[in-house]
Amino acid sequence: MPRSQRRAALVHPDARDYDLLDVLHALADRTRMTIVRTLRTDPERACGTFPVDVAPSTLTHHFRVLREAGLIHQREEGNRRWTTLRLADLDGRFPGLLDSILAADKRAAP
Amino acid sequence: MPRSQRRAALVHPDARDYDLLDVLHALADRTRMTIVRTLRTDPERACGTFPVDVAPSTLTHHFRVLREAGLIHQREEGNRRWTTLRLADLDGRFPGLLDSILAADKRAAP
Repeated sequence: MPRSQRRAALVHPDARDYDLLDVLHALADRTRMTIVRTLRTDPERACGTFPVDVAPSTLTHHFRVLREAGLIHQREEGNRRWTTLRLADLDGRFPGLLDSILAADKRAAP
Repeated sequence: MPRSQRRAALVHPDARDYDLLDVLHALADRTRMTIVRTLRTDPERACGTFPVDVAPSTLTHHFRVLREAGLIHQREEGNRRWTTLRLADLDGRFPGLLDSILAADKRAAP
């Protein structure tokens, strides 16, 4: 399979398969928390536009952790990757949890 | 300093120094989540009485992670170590957060 096609195969867990411990682990990192906070107010963002200061390969890793925990959805369009927050899926499984954590983060790091 | 005295020097962070990411990391583990859930209903427990199936050295590690994140308080009495949940401290810093996470965990693993 050509590399370009493999790159497009992004795996997203089904909303029924959420693991709370994976969600907590994904959020227990400043860069990933910032990505999620940004998406909570901005519905969809291109990958290079998040207010985080890390190397591209590190950012790719953080997006993968968030994606595999079910926190974000990513899609390829042309040569850009677009990211959205899976808020409805999360709230369906764990009502109010994400906003409770984001409110705590806002108290900690406004 | 004799070993017995060193063992008694348990470090507990001040409630003002809570780090949300440390709290989330501490809870992102099944054994540690079980310890916290148990303490949420049982105010104080001796260390060997938690419903977890791990080696004593592993349990010591988990207690240390919880203690350093400010989730639990431990005190020595005779040759037993007693553990309590720092719910008031946590709720003072992050109102409602712990119960929101515990409610999500109950939905995930009743």
